[in-house]
Amino acid sequence: MAETREAPAKKTRIGTPTCDINRLLFRGKDTLNELVGKISFTEGVFLAVTGKMPSPQQVKILDACLVVLMDHGITPSALVTRLVADTVPADIQVSMAAGLLTIGNKFMGTIAGCGALLERGIASGLPAEQWAADIVAEYQRTKRRFPGFGHPDYFPVDPRTVRLFQVAEEAGVSGRYVRLVKTLESEIERQGGRRLPLNATGAIGALLCEIEFPVAAMRGVAVISRTAGLLAHALEEQETGTAWPITQMVMKAIPYDDAP
Amino acid sequence: MAETREAPAKKTRIGTPTCDINRLLFRGKDTLNELVGKISFTEGVFLAVTGKMPSPQQVKILDACLVVLMDHGITPSALVTRLVADTVPADIQVSMAAGLLTIGNKFMGTIAGCGALLERGIASGLPAEQWAADIVAEYQRTKRRFPGFGHPDYFPVDPRTVRLFQVAEEAGVSGRYVRLVKTLESEIERQGGRRLPLNATGAIGALLCEIEFPVAAMRGVAVISRTAGLLAHALEEQETGTAWPITQMVMKAIPYDDAP
Amino acid sequence: MAETREAPAKKTRIGTPTCDINRLLFRGKDTLNELVGKISFTEGVFLAVTGKMPSPQQVKILDACLVVLMDHGITPSALVTRLVADTVPADIQVSMAAGLLTIGNKFMGTIAGCGALLERGIASGLPAEQWAADIVAEYQRTKRRFPGFGHPDYFPVDPRTVRLFQVAEEAGVSGRYVRLVKTLESEIERQGGRRLPLNATGAIGALLCEIEFPVAAMRGVAVISRTAGLLAHALEEQETGTAWPITQMVMKAIPYDDAP
Amino acid sequence: MAETREAPAKKTRIGTPTCDINRLLFRGKDTLNELVGKISFTEGVFLAVTGKMPSPQQVKILDACLVVLMDHGITPSALVTRLVADTVPADIQVSMAAGLLTIGNKFMGTIAGCGALLERGIASGLPAEQWAADIVAEYQRTKRRFPGFGHPDYFPVDPRTVRLFQVAEEAGVSGRYVRLVKTLESEIERQGGRRLPLNATGAIGALLCEIEFPVAAMRGVAVISRTAGLLAHALEEQETGTAWPITQMVMKAIPYDDAP
Repeated sequence: MAETREAPAKKTRIGTPTCDINRLLFRGKDTLNELVGKISFTEGVFLAVTGKMPSPQQVKILDACLVVLMDHGITPSALVTRLVADTVPADIQVSMAAGLLTIGNKFMGTIAGCGALLERGIASGLPAEQWAADIVAEYQRTKRRFPGFGHPDYFPVDPRTVRLFQVAEEAGVSGRYVRLVKTLESEIERQGGRRLPLNATGAIGALLCEIEFPVAAMRGVAVISRTAGLLAHALEEQETGTAWPITQMVMKAIPYDDAP
Repeated sequence: MAETREAPAKKTRIGTPTCDINRLLFRGKDTLNELVGKISFTEGVFLAVTGKMPSPQQVKILDACLVVLMDHGITPSALVTRLVADTVPADIQVSMAAGLLTIGNKFMGTIAGCGALLERGIASGLPAEQWAADIVAEYQRTKRRFPGFGHPDYFPVDPRTVRLFQVAEEAGVSGRYVRLVKTLESEIERQGGRRLPLNATGAIGALLCEIEFPVAAMRGVAVISRTAGLLAHALEEQETGTAWPITQMVMKAIPYDDAP
Repeated sequence: MAETREAPAKKTRIGTPTCDINRLLFRGKDTLNELVGKISFTEGVFLAVTGKMPSPQQVKILDACLVVLMDHGITPSALVTRLVADTVPADIQVSMAAGLLTIGNKFMGTIAGCGALLERGIASGLPAEQWAADIVAEYQRTKRRFPGFGHPDYFPVDPRTVRLFQVAEEAGVSGRYVRLVKTLESEIERQGGRRLPLNATGAIGALLCEIEFPVAAMRGVAVISRTAGLLAHALEEQETGTAWPITQMVMKAIPYDDAP
Repeated sequence: MAETREAPAKKTRIGTPTCDINRLLFRGKDTLNELVGKISFTEGVFLAVTGKMPSPQQVKILDACLVVLMDHGITPSALVTRLVADTVPADIQVSMAAGLLTIGNKFMGTIAGCGALLERGIASGLPAEQWAADIVAEYQRTKRRFPGFGHPDYFPVDPRTVRLFQVAEEAGVSGRYVRLVKTLESEIERQGGRRLPLNATGAIGALLCEIEFPVAAMRGVAVISRTAGLLAHALEEQETGTAWPITQMVMKAIPYDDAP
């Protein structure tokens, strides 16, 4: 029943398949001779996304962003991974993937939201103060929230933001996105009448802009980073078995009550 | 309706939640002062899984393993990510997680299978040749396949295996697992009558044993590694739109035919 | 280490846990005596979502919607399920769940989009013609697409829409949402200058409005429906093994080409 | 760049794609004229899996199985769906799919385990008592657990099993699998010295055997069934917001403690 048919006129610029036995290429590099044993995984992530090898400065920033988001204890993502790890213990990729599904707009998706906003600010060509004044007025009028600002636990500053900006300064990044986001933070406080600290995801959005990491890929940094923490939670679940006591505790805490 | 209830007598050794505002710890380290800006993400992965900081040698090996598996072009995992990225474009974590679900026993799950086998070999205390002779005889008798051996495209050697072992030698790893897996490869050929080359996942299983990375976490290395490639595929899908032509091509290639 | 702690003041109105051994309730009904052996699964779906038992008319409509979306051959959802079923064969829930992740805004998510639009139309209190004229003008001005209209294969009508509306008429539904969506279809053609047929998802959106199925749950109908088709694809994959030939075909059709 | 290529010599027996505009077939039936408006979704599930239309008796049994597993309150699956629904609220298919990932061997996967065992028993051709005596002795010797037996909350009987068997009797199923599983239950008690009641998943495994539903598809019944409950939990989560209080409660209950 095999017949010939037209193939889609498409190509990929990412990598060669293993069946292409005469060359093993990834983003134009010889995988075995130029990459394996030569570059770090973080350099590989940058290369995968941008098609270019990063500078040491870019690596330093990307590593800091990947390290800071690895884990925050028993988060919703960790909880989901633990519950699935308990029921599908042999396939750790399933529990890790399930936990990653929680990285939505509410939590780490704000990285890209903040990054996109800052790109818009730089693209406007306006002085930082003027752009910030305009955008804050616009958001106030339309009652929109700024992605990457505010945190339930950290006030008046998010200590992770402080540290990330310190790393950026040490690395010598140019800093125009960092300056812009700080201007925005001040303007939000000025117009809003109360401080709303730039949180870690907002800071990461600014830093990823600094290293020319595309906005469309920014949430992916959270995904990659969190895999490390979720792997640890899946393993700990297999050792300590928290899923069942957690379920029982929640079951009792949320009783069935059908009264209207 | 709030009442008090008994909590599970459990604890976590991974990290503190953000609500623990006076300390931000990960595996006993001060996250902001000891980790962010100080360690690479690869070091973070090792720390997350083992609770210990890796030696430079261990980092070199883990980086090589993470880099070699990032991508192999249009694999089933990349295909799944592309199809989901086309339908859920705004939430890149969903398409990445979907692609990760393919990392089962058939493909990269063999890393842990090979690692577990080698650990058993070392634990046996037997000379490598004797253990290999016994285990190959046992597998032949029970018609089981050796995880991490054989490849549809690479023969007589998997070039990735060659390169990974070269990196290991340069890094100066002790090599007892590498020697054991090579002995096993020879013995499989001797008893089986034909060569079945150690593939990249088998080599990674051996190398992760060398750096004391636990078997239970080995498949997680494939998960973390592949996130980099899948992020690139999700982004490329948004630029080039391959999902629809792929679906149409497959639709035509697999016609409906209800005849018995 | 067990201590007491405050529980969230929350409750669930869905069902009792199995540990509540003296009663097994679901939505206020005695599960074993009022539901099992007494109602169909479709009635159960309606009860689960709305908390009420459906009328025979509502069941007829919901069944028609669930049946029509079960399968459309080798769709992206079926393709994803087949690729995952090949790599994780023992856990059929993983391949089914992976396939369900494709039910995004692009495909079946338009059910709820259309349903929400029609609810807005009815809530406006305006005559159908006037509301349709206004909303079409608004969408034209803002270049938005109407969810549930247009189809790459079906023109000038989607035969599924025709059949679904026939079933609704036979069942004797009141028809105000059906009339509204038909008015909208005419108005889109009138103002747009070309016919854009109401497709099956748009028709389902209208019918689910007719039976008072909440808009927030409408996409769930597609999820439930498609599980039946995806189960069949997962099983067929295990018998016929299409994943590997598909991957090879796509691999060849999308070559690696790094030229700018 | 389009070229011709060889397609895999494969076909599907499930359904036609929408691009096949002259016929819309599903399992050999005319979808619009023979299925939509004519059959229930439960009949559709049976048809999808087996390729045959079920008898009224088979429908009654399949409906009872689908209804009994829809929900059990705050289970791990419901918990996962709630956590994901909170973070990805707009895409209900993501939270439903995440919850389905928990249907592993530990919980509902035992349906197929029990079904496979009973098929083996019938295939043996031995009298029920003799087969049960042999298999229980074998499992005792190898310390294996019988899938579908025992329950943390229900003793000495699982009331769901009682009701399901009552439904089966009313429906007039032949009962050879039911008799076999009851014989097995007695033998487990006799040889083990204590009662281990046949639970709902075991009973469902037996009933699905009775209606000739293939073992490979049995876990899929749990997947389909649970989608109804998970849809309800995703919706309730959006109304009541339990994810955050649950996370906080668990966070406090499982403190970070790095002491060895």
